[in-house]
Amino acid sequence: MKTIMVIADGLGGRPDDTPEGTCLEVANTPTLDSLVDRGTAGLMHPIKPGVRPGSDTAHLSLFGYDPEKYYTGRGVFEAAGIGMDLGKNDVSFRTNFATVDSDGKISDRRAGRISDGQEELEEALSELTSKKYPDVEVRFKTSTEHRGALSISGEDLGGNVTPTDPHELGVPIPQAKGLDEESIKTAEVLNEVTDQAREILESAPINVKRRKEGKLPANAILSRGAAKYPDVPSVEEVYGVSASVVAAGALYIGVAKVVGMDYIPVDGATGTVDSKIINKAKAAIRELEGGKDVVFVHMKGTDNASHDHNAEAKVKFIEKIDETFAWLDDNIDWNETHLSFSGDHTTPIRYGDHVAEPVPVMIVGPNVKTDQVEMFDEYTAMHGGLGTFSGQLLPITLSYSDQLKKFGA
Amino acid sequence: MKTIMVIADGLGGRPDDTPEGTCLEVANTPTLDSLVDRGTAGLMHPIKPGVRPGSDTAHLSLFGYDPEKYYTGRGVFEAAGIGMDLGKNDVSFRTNFATVDSDGKISDRRAGRISDGQEELEEALSELTSKKYPDVEVRFKTSTEHRGALSISGEDLGGNVTPTDPHELGVPIPQAKGLDEESIKTAEVLNEVTDQAREILESAPINVKRRKEGKLPANAILSRGAAKYPDVPSVEEVYGVSASVVAAGALYIGVAKVVGMDYIPVDGATGTVDSKIINKAKAAIRELEGGKDVVFVHMKGTDNASHDHNAEAKVKFIEKIDETFAWLDDNIDWNETHLSFSGDHTTPIRYGDHVAEPVPVMIVGPNVKTDQVEMFDEYTAMHGGLGTFSGQLLPITLSYSDQLKKFGA
Repeated sequence: MKTIMVIADGLGGRPDDTPEGTCLEVANTPTLDSLVDRGTAGLMHPIKPGVRPGSDTAHLSLFGYDPEKYYTGRGVFEAAGIGMDLGKNDVSFRTNFATVDSDGKISDRRAGRISDGQEELEEALSELTSKKYPDVEVRFKTSTEHRGALSISGEDLGGNVTPTDPHELGVPIPQAKGLDEESIKTAEVLNEVTDQAREILESAPINVKRRKEGKLPANAILSRGAAKYPDVPSVEEVYGVSASVVAAGALYIGVAKVVGMDYIPVDGATGTVDSKIINKAKAAIRELEGGKDVVFVHMKGTDNASHDHNAEAKVKFIEKIDETFAWLDDNIDWNETHLSFSGDHTTPIRYGDHVAEPVPVMIVGPNVKTDQVEMFDEYTAMHGGLGTFSGQLLPITLSYSDQLKKFGA
Repeated sequence: MKTIMVIADGLGGRPDDTPEGTCLEVANTPTLDSLVDRGTAGLMHPIKPGVRPGSDTAHLSLFGYDPEKYYTGRGVFEAAGIGMDLGKNDVSFRTNFATVDSDGKISDRRAGRISDGQEELEEALSELTSKKYPDVEVRFKTSTEHRGALSISGEDLGGNVTPTDPHELGVPIPQAKGLDEESIKTAEVLNEVTDQAREILESAPINVKRRKEGKLPANAILSRGAAKYPDVPSVEEVYGVSASVVAAGALYIGVAKVVGMDYIPVDGATGTVDSKIINKAKAAIRELEGGKDVVFVHMKGTDNASHDHNAEAKVKFIEKIDETFAWLDDNIDWNETHLSFSGDHTTPIRYGDHVAEPVPVMIVGPNVKTDQVEMFDEYTAMHGGLGTFSGQLLPITLSYSDQLKKFGA
């Protein structure tokens, strides 16, 4: 038995998303409607009622991991998501390349959204090291544009460290502070490394060149989202299944990797409304055919459009998802595959950020008890056979394919 | 106010249980339908959505005890269920009488399902003792056929011990290992006792006789399900109610006894589809008339039939439950009694083992808000007034009879 779990980021909406209702109500979704007609629906609180989810905490919860227990911070997922190989001794941070002026004050938090030269910068920063604590290892990796990740690795390092990104301009880079005993050393290393990066980057050839071209130099790194690697069992250990992740955003790839899923890169997957999501569907089917039990597919465009207050783009992206599901419907082996579909949170158009209201969810496949729901949106899903529940979407889906381990005897 | 809580083990099913649907849909259940028409229905996740329940963890959860917090293992319930008097220093195991050949290898895990002589074997094993740790007490008790329980009692003994039952043939009895510091001593005693039992049983007169008769000797005990006695408050302490358990299976009797219910034996209650469950209903009414607040009645036949992939037997047993409920309906004092009915998990016919899908549930009696549900099965219950919830069936029922203690002030 196989499982495809598709999460459209920020899928849920509110009545005033458009004059005619939520984007899911307005979008023309013949395939989603057909699927839910053959399956069962419900409303899912990504974490629990009244908890406003982040994307990272929500995904942990959807995979069946209580974020209250396992969430340590975002940095570890960003770092894992861009391909850093992390272990239990790592404390990881998201970083930005930034521009600091001659007075030492931050003048641009994204170094003019630097678009090339990342390899050179990464190479230059491979020298980063802690002089005070030679047993501590420091690693840096760039991602897209100004984005990157930093990892500080050593025995008993705490992850409770304040950011060096002040989220404002015209101020110096703040000193990191350790908020508990074990995190003081981590903060010291982060401060050492932040100073070193300033020196290395100030004189880096790429920045000399950027200045000449009138561009802002990437002469500092700002770090935030400190997170100790979580002590989390893999999906293989918890459920006894092998799993892959098909996604474009580093955060989602990272959460999935940390719970033991294999990352499958896909051509044209961009994490935006323009993403070639059909390629994600094709990759998912390939992974199942290749022997994986579970594929988690993440689609980001719904959330981007919501954050941009763009109902039209969200409706259009939902219709693109619907077309992708039409292909999936034709290519899934329905005798042995379950498809579950939901969002990781509600992102209404007007508010443009995550809210705690539940998200519609559907599960289709063998053993599912079909209900009366024939269309897929926030209103119809209220009446679905899954009722209203919190997180746990992966194990709930796995139950139908007899793939859960028993708790007790 | 009085409460009867009836659990039909493995009651829930799946759409393909029979060509016409789940066994509950197919069974002719006029009384269950009449009861749910006068009461309220819902779907219950025995533990929580996406968690595949064991019978022991599920019953803890139905009684309102979080198994994540209280569950230590199955052995303690089996031992309590067959009548061992246990306390906080006990580490208990389920045991099998087995046959070990002259090479010391296990040739039958059930000693030919030994059907008599259990008293003699128990008597012989009353000598079991730890020579290495004279402060530790060892007790053994037989149950039906090859089944029994072992308890090792002493200060600070851990219950995290690997089994000596390898669940395979042709191998020697494995050494038990303690998986944490406190459990090393427990494992040592278990290994001592396993060796002693081999010697005692090898020369026991009953085994000499069995060999002469060409029967397999019960010349070893295999232990599994190690469990420290859980630090669990009684239903009297938690809810302020007195309670009895009417059941045949040792496991269910054991869980109920551990939470402080009095065990009431019933003639003809066998824990199979042939059980005289009407006698359980009569015993329940007697207990309430005798002054008890709550009676928990367990019926096992539904689960046995499901594990045997026998839909016909499951349907028939559900119809027998329905007849029993007809008697109950006539004999319950409805002015002051609540009846709740559900399963401890779903056991579909084809899969034949527990799955995580929710189970239909009903509550009938004073103060219950009746809903639109007029028939009792997995589909109708989706629309019930109880909605979809997790465990807690006993306290939910007790609320209607004003018998819960307040949390807070």
